[in-house]
Amino acid sequence: MSMIHEECGVFGVMTPQPENLAHLTYCGLFALQHRGQEGCGMTVNDDGVFTTHKDLGLAEHVFTPQVLSGFPAGTMAVGHTRYGTTGGNQRRNCQPMEVNHRKGKMSLVHNGNLSNAAALRSELEQRGAIFHSTSDTEIIAYIITQARLRTGSIEEAVRLAVSELEGAFSMLVMSAQKLIAVRDPHGFRPLCIGTLPGGGYVFASESCALTAVGAAFLRDVEPGEMIVVTQDGRMCADRQLVQTQPKTLCVFEYIYFARPDSVLDGVSVHAARKAAGRMLAAAHPADADIVIGVPDSGLDAALGFAEASGIPYGIGLIKNKYIGRTFIAPTQNERVSAVRLKLSPIRETVAGRRVVLIDDSIVRGTTSRRIVSLLRDAGAAEIHMRISAPPFLHPCYYGTDIDSEENLIACHHTVPEIAEMIGADSLGFLPIDALPQLAGSRQICTACFTGQYPTATDRAESRSRFERKLHAAEN
Amino acid sequence: MSMIHEECGVFGVMTPQPENLAHLTYCGLFALQHRGQEGCGMTVNDDGVFTTHKDLGLAEHVFTPQVLSGFPAGTMAVGHTRYGTTGGNQRRNCQPMEVNHRKGKMSLVHNGNLSNAAALRSELEQRGAIFHSTSDTEIIAYIITQARLRTGSIEEAVRLAVSELEGAFSMLVMSAQKLIAVRDPHGFRPLCIGTLPGGGYVFASESCALTAVGAAFLRDVEPGEMIVVTQDGRMCADRQLVQTQPKTLCVFEYIYFARPDSVLDGVSVHAARKAAGRMLAAAHPADADIVIGVPDSGLDAALGFAEASGIPYGIGLIKNKYIGRTFIAPTQNERVSAVRLKLSPIRETVAGRRVVLIDDSIVRGTTSRRIVSLLRDAGAAEIHMRISAPPFLHPCYYGTDIDSEENLIACHHTVPEIAEMIGADSLGFLPIDALPQLAGSRQICTACFTGQYPTATDRAESRSRFERKLHAAEN
Amino acid sequence: MSMIHEECGVFGVMTPQPENLAHLTYCGLFALQHRGQEGCGMTVNDDGVFTTHKDLGLAEHVFTPQVLSGFPAGTMAVGHTRYGTTGGNQRRNCQPMEVNHRKGKMSLVHNGNLSNAAALRSELEQRGAIFHSTSDTEIIAYIITQARLRTGSIEEAVRLAVSELEGAFSMLVMSAQKLIAVRDPHGFRPLCIGTLPGGGYVFASESCALTAVGAAFLRDVEPGEMIVVTQDGRMCADRQLVQTQPKTLCVFEYIYFARPDSVLDGVSVHAARKAAGRMLAAAHPADADIVIGVPDSGLDAALGFAEASGIPYGIGLIKNKYIGRTFIAPTQNERVSAVRLKLSPIRETVAGRRVVLIDDSIVRGTTSRRIVSLLRDAGAAEIHMRISAPPFLHPCYYGTDIDSEENLIACHHTVPEIAEMIGADSLGFLPIDALPQLAGSRQICTACFTGQYPTATDRAESRSRFERKLHAAEN
Amino acid sequence: MSMIHEECGVFGVMTPQPENLAHLTYCGLFALQHRGQEGCGMTVNDDGVFTTHKDLGLAEHVFTPQVLSGFPAGTMAVGHTRYGTTGGNQRRNCQPMEVNHRKGKMSLVHNGNLSNAAALRSELEQRGAIFHSTSDTEIIAYIITQARLRTGSIEEAVRLAVSELEGAFSMLVMSAQKLIAVRDPHGFRPLCIGTLPGGGYVFASESCALTAVGAAFLRDVEPGEMIVVTQDGRMCADRQLVQTQPKTLCVFEYIYFARPDSVLDGVSVHAARKAAGRMLAAAHPADADIVIGVPDSGLDAALGFAEASGIPYGIGLIKNKYIGRTFIAPTQNERVSAVRLKLSPIRETVAGRRVVLIDDSIVRGTTSRRIVSLLRDAGAAEIHMRISAPPFLHPCYYGTDIDSEENLIACHHTVPEIAEMIGADSLGFLPIDALPQLAGSRQICTACFTGQYPTATDRAESRSRFERKLHAAEN
Repeated sequence: MSMIHEECGVFGVMTPQPENLAHLTYCGLFALQHRGQEGCGMTVNDDGVFTTHKDLGLAEHVFTPQVLSGFPAGTMAVGHTRYGTTGGNQRRNCQPMEVNHRKGKMSLVHNGNLSNAAALRSELEQRGAIFHSTSDTEIIAYIITQARLRTGSIEEAVRLAVSELEGAFSMLVMSAQKLIAVRDPHGFRPLCIGTLPGGGYVFASESCALTAVGAAFLRDVEPGEMIVVTQDGRMCADRQLVQTQPKTLCVFEYIYFARPDSVLDGVSVHAARKAAGRMLAAAHPADADIVIGVPDSGLDAALGFAEASGIPYGIGLIKNKYIGRTFIAPTQNERVSAVRLKLSPIRETVAGRRVVLIDDSIVRGTTSRRIVSLLRDAGAAEIHMRISAPPFLHPCYYGTDIDSEENLIACHHTVPEIAEMIGADSLGFLPIDALPQLAGSRQICTACFTGQYPTATDRAESRSRFERKLHAAEN
Repeated sequence: MSMIHEECGVFGVMTPQPENLAHLTYCGLFALQHRGQEGCGMTVNDDGVFTTHKDLGLAEHVFTPQVLSGFPAGTMAVGHTRYGTTGGNQRRNCQPMEVNHRKGKMSLVHNGNLSNAAALRSELEQRGAIFHSTSDTEIIAYIITQARLRTGSIEEAVRLAVSELEGAFSMLVMSAQKLIAVRDPHGFRPLCIGTLPGGGYVFASESCALTAVGAAFLRDVEPGEMIVVTQDGRMCADRQLVQTQPKTLCVFEYIYFARPDSVLDGVSVHAARKAAGRMLAAAHPADADIVIGVPDSGLDAALGFAEASGIPYGIGLIKNKYIGRTFIAPTQNERVSAVRLKLSPIRETVAGRRVVLIDDSIVRGTTSRRIVSLLRDAGAAEIHMRISAPPFLHPCYYGTDIDSEENLIACHHTVPEIAEMIGADSLGFLPIDALPQLAGSRQICTACFTGQYPTATDRAESRSRFERKLHAAEN
Repeated sequence: MSMIHEECGVFGVMTPQPENLAHLTYCGLFALQHRGQEGCGMTVNDDGVFTTHKDLGLAEHVFTPQVLSGFPAGTMAVGHTRYGTTGGNQRRNCQPMEVNHRKGKMSLVHNGNLSNAAALRSELEQRGAIFHSTSDTEIIAYIITQARLRTGSIEEAVRLAVSELEGAFSMLVMSAQKLIAVRDPHGFRPLCIGTLPGGGYVFASESCALTAVGAAFLRDVEPGEMIVVTQDGRMCADRQLVQTQPKTLCVFEYIYFARPDSVLDGVSVHAARKAAGRMLAAAHPADADIVIGVPDSGLDAALGFAEASGIPYGIGLIKNKYIGRTFIAPTQNERVSAVRLKLSPIRETVAGRRVVLIDDSIVRGTTSRRIVSLLRDAGAAEIHMRISAPPFLHPCYYGTDIDSEENLIACHHTVPEIAEMIGADSLGFLPIDALPQLAGSRQICTACFTGQYPTATDRAESRSRFERKLHAAEN
Repeated sequence: MSMIHEECGVFGVMTPQPENLAHLTYCGLFALQHRGQEGCGMTVNDDGVFTTHKDLGLAEHVFTPQVLSGFPAGTMAVGHTRYGTTGGNQRRNCQPMEVNHRKGKMSLVHNGNLSNAAALRSELEQRGAIFHSTSDTEIIAYIITQARLRTGSIEEAVRLAVSELEGAFSMLVMSAQKLIAVRDPHGFRPLCIGTLPGGGYVFASESCALTAVGAAFLRDVEPGEMIVVTQDGRMCADRQLVQTQPKTLCVFEYIYFARPDSVLDGVSVHAARKAAGRMLAAAHPADADIVIGVPDSGLDAALGFAEASGIPYGIGLIKNKYIGRTFIAPTQNERVSAVRLKLSPIRETVAGRRVVLIDDSIVRGTTSRRIVSLLRDAGAAEIHMRISAPPFLHPCYYGTDIDSEENLIACHHTVPEIAEMIGADSLGFLPIDALPQLAGSRQICTACFTGQYPTATDRAESRSRFERKLHAAEN
């Protein structure tokens, strides 16, 4: 429903003995599917022989039993789920990016956006580089492999390369012998490490993927840290990879992107959302009979709001669980019914009642208006909408696809205006000053709400222009 | 998760002017998808010309934009979602069943099982009938069309035919000019009628499908009633179709099958489930810190249990929303992780707490054991499992696919034994005498719990043997 | 290229011991693919348990390795290739037709058209029969199964049923224990029997399918004959099935339908085509430098023409072997290039030469005009077109899909007019009186050229009207 | 049947106004499908915006109507058909190779193999290049784009790049504004240019693709020549691209690869094959009754043999036209019947006769033995096999996939031994000294028969080792 997406989930594994890592990685990607539904892929490393398969589509469709059985056993693997738009042309942007270079093979998976991508790409092209894709990942692959020519090991090459990168990157680099995890100095995107019962390590964007494969959570990869695991089972961490920066995990990981059962940088996503609901109740109380959430991501905050306000929690909207990524309301004319097919009100819960309705965001306002209308049709007496995030006002350069400012309703209208446009009796957003409390007083990146960017903005602007150029050329 | 399924959802529509009914029916089937994921189909009636498409698969996959655009506009349509097993051979059992007969064309959709199917089929075969499928629907089609030879109208033929049928049937019969809805005298399976804003009628197994297509709920089709709508927009009801019987809607419609936003025979499914939770709290209280439900069907009862007990409601298990019907854990060996991929605990909610866990049924016990184990791993201090239905003890002859008695854990073990087998600290089932209260003191069929069948059991037994024979021949 | 098609090839096999008959039948269907590319199917009989798979598409696409491996081993099987038009709705017309009846199971495959289908269907409907398809095969299935109720064995039922059928039918009936082959009294469509090296029998529409599966040709099934093979390996023939009729195999089997390596009723198809070419050379000699055929079906006659005339045989047109059934020239506008994509001239052979061009038929004239034009562009000095059949003038009621008279160029134009329309310097058709000599002086059905129908034409006419009605109702 | 393959066909087009070039290119690729069935692709250039689609599979399957309609109109396009093995991993090796570089976009299609690929790749890697594929095409793309940094135009960059390449390359380079064709100095692989009726140019590996799209043959691109066509319709040729070399088109283009309706370097392929047949008749006469060819590539030579020997030409083997690339005889055990499914004898032609059987090659001998056996079963009295090429004895480094020496029957056995092994009464190969006469006394590359390589062999050897390494790493 929301029009905000993030680019990607990453997963990696190293085991002491060859195993069916394609299956294990598939399970991990399946748990990270919410971070990207456009495409997915994996590379399995069988003693230096790399086997890669990637395609557009959900993990379940790309990794059929037949495809999975085509992978050899191996001792390392990396995998990726990619967010995105449709379009057959974009298969080349899927990851992992497996490349051959002077010193062997490398396969790379990456979550985040570089804010200096345009400048880096331009420098590489000056030196004769050619690009097969429009992704930042290919830029990173070049920089690492070029650094590799001047260094004695892949980890030194990665360290050298990282000093050239700006922006958001949580990535895994797999060479013939090593698996390396790196997180940018700000830690915009999450990354954690776990251990397998029989030995071996697992890396994943979110802890829920560790749980899915039966791994025990060890710790988060720290911002600015590089962790190297080697075939003999050793794990080396280098926390002084680059100079220290303010640590600023993206606030939207807690509000919307991550799965509620994940724990990011020590904070439970479910708990953060409940906290948002509680703070929302404090900031924008409502005189109401029932609190309901928009499934799935509004439910945790609704429970928090209910607990803090003392208003009973109810189940007021049902989501059709068969709504798939490819669901299309067949014609333009009939598109009005898309929300109706996806969400359905429970009259028993809302009829004749004053309802507090919790959602995680308002982007254009269209969806909110339709949900409010559904509830009115089901007999709701009053609808008090509460949003578990502040209004979006600024673009994101670190891997979140927030709609252009023209489409952001909050850029053009006051809160009362929006309330009227969506048909709610009242409307309240989470106050900006409540954000730090979501994450246990940690620093977080709130640029999309505040416009305060942790990295240089001139780069960011040039990137934006550069991206528009790239996309124009593609379409 | 549960191994209990029902066979089918039905949908029908009549409009005063030709419209894109394929799209409308698709939306209706999409809302009824939970009643059957094996296959689906529809027939659109364009002034007597029938166009049928049906196949194995979800509505979204069977009715691609290309397929939908191949349907003509029409003034009537019927559609069907079918529950079932996998297997390419079974495409012939998909509905609607479109047949040509002496007096024209007829397309039939049906939900339920006949308890005298074997006898009827045998009699028809004696007279030379041949069968292309193993479905009851083909038997009904024969009986109606044979009756049509002796009567002056399709509705008379349906009335005659219905007097020969025993068991459960909620069905729609579409001829060139009329759309007829019939519900068996017991009303085992639900069926309701709604009106479209611009005129026209909609029939559906559940009211949620009316909501999905923007129709207003008019009323339930009564047990033993036949409703005929004609091209000129008239609606005739005949409530004396057959002699009165005790009305006994299947209790499992409330407990498990139906969508919580549906209202069946005047009772909200969501409300019935909350009521089950409340009665469960009264019958089997627990000394605990938090109440959680197994998503999706345990959530309503969990809320009821929380309200009645005063123990806070929590979100303790997350369901991976990308789990599809075709999801397969790649190898036997790895199947242990299937529950783990589907459900994930929220440690924040359960760690160190005494948890009341609500689910709708225990069939074999395997799934319950794994869920309990997941919660223990996440730190739950105690787990008190409560089931919002009594234990299954008897087979169903009316369209519900309850596993064979050998596999029903409750047939072989006491409640304390089961509690131990699944690893719960305590276990409680909904008492049988609470069942009538679920549905506002209405009569309901509880044969699967009590063994008291509303129709003759000798027939039922013969049916069971007959079905086994049929299936043996097929496989 | 030609717009004339026949409906279907049939294949059947019985072995003493259970074998992988799905594979064997697949090989047989593959050899009969030229007789029908719309759809195909097979039923394998494993000791009374029937497994059927059928779908639209070529054998290679319908019977994937996965599908084939899903069939059990068996001792009997029947298969079918079906000619036809496109359209998802028509899957129900694919064969075999597997039905359940009073006395068990039966699977039926059939090649030909009944000329009294409308009357038979009407009588069956009077007695309450319902039809799932528009195919004659379903009519035959009804008649046999109804006869079965009054008789003591399946072969008696088939004998009784056959006496009611008029028109063309070469068919195989498989019951739990027996495999029965029947050919209509006129023998319009071919059918032969062979023996497998290790014991067992094979039936096929053409001998080429026997060769494909390594069976030795035994003999043709005679017109009006029924052959029964039983599980114990006995073969019983009944040549007095129905009263004797003039034997009239369809002449188009020799001219166009059958594969040149097949031998039908004792006459080699290749030899018949060469004979047509020789007679054509005698009837319409040409003063020319080279004789070329339109591949594939004009090549044999071209060789015969060359031998009889003394003009050298050449290879003048190449057919693109990647042209598939699904090949579509993307837009209407570009359709002009379809012939060009399919056929390409060899300039070396035709440039500056007077060319005799042999094809098997002219239907609308469009294709011929384009081929003539291709050859002119490649430098041919003169083009003398010779057709190895007489002009089409009359519809066929026995299973051949000749275009409607409005589209038959020969119904509206003289030979010189046609020559001018297609751009040929001269044009000659095979004389009607030469036809009997094609087949070694046997009687053949030449109704499409002569209008002399071997069966009653009033029936035929009624059928034609009936079919139009059926198709109208379908579309 | 033959186990010898070539890598690729190329196609390019430039039109004065934007047109549906996707369709035109599809038609061209369809005509070049015989040069590669593994995969195909195309890039359409719409005023500098490139749209590329490529995948494994035949053109008909990759370029569905839906895919074709997704391409914009354009004024330039390049396309490619690729020979190869199966395997989902290899999609990355499909062409065109579209890359982004400092000076814009480039799309490249290439036919042939570089003999100094290993050395070039190594040098590029030294300078930091990364490789996404194992194809020579990516090497060429790098060299051109690096040269582009030092030059003022794409054609200068191509000229510079070509001086570094050794071996076989017929390629098309498309930039935003220009379409450039280059053929290596030896002219190992064919390439020609034609003109479209309404203006514009077409390039293709074989003239048959010009015919397919309605273009007129203009001339061959000369060995060592570069032709540049620009958006304004000018065509510039540069025949002094590199220093003159002996012109040596691959002899196998005439014997096997090319379509008989193509004219390569002024010589008709059909004529060359007939000439081979005539010379074979002179070198290895036979006392026989009939001459037959193995379809499709043996038919032209059979006609030549018949003409030269005076023995009648016959049609003795029929090829099943439904044999597709994906046809798989389902199990290992049954693979014996693969030849039988593909080829079928005409008994009428061969029974009781002394047969001369013409094929284009013997690789392992297995296929020949089975064909001989088929003909014996059909009654052939004697079989005199004649091969329209000399025996293979040496590997090819220029793009032909001849089996390893261990599998080449002629490396281990004398001609009489081979005759005995395949069961022929006599056997004769085309003498090596007859080869030059095939192509009108032109020089041709005959290295696979003679071991005399036109380029340095040490490079070739290193390449061979390099390739084995690459493939090992991939599998």
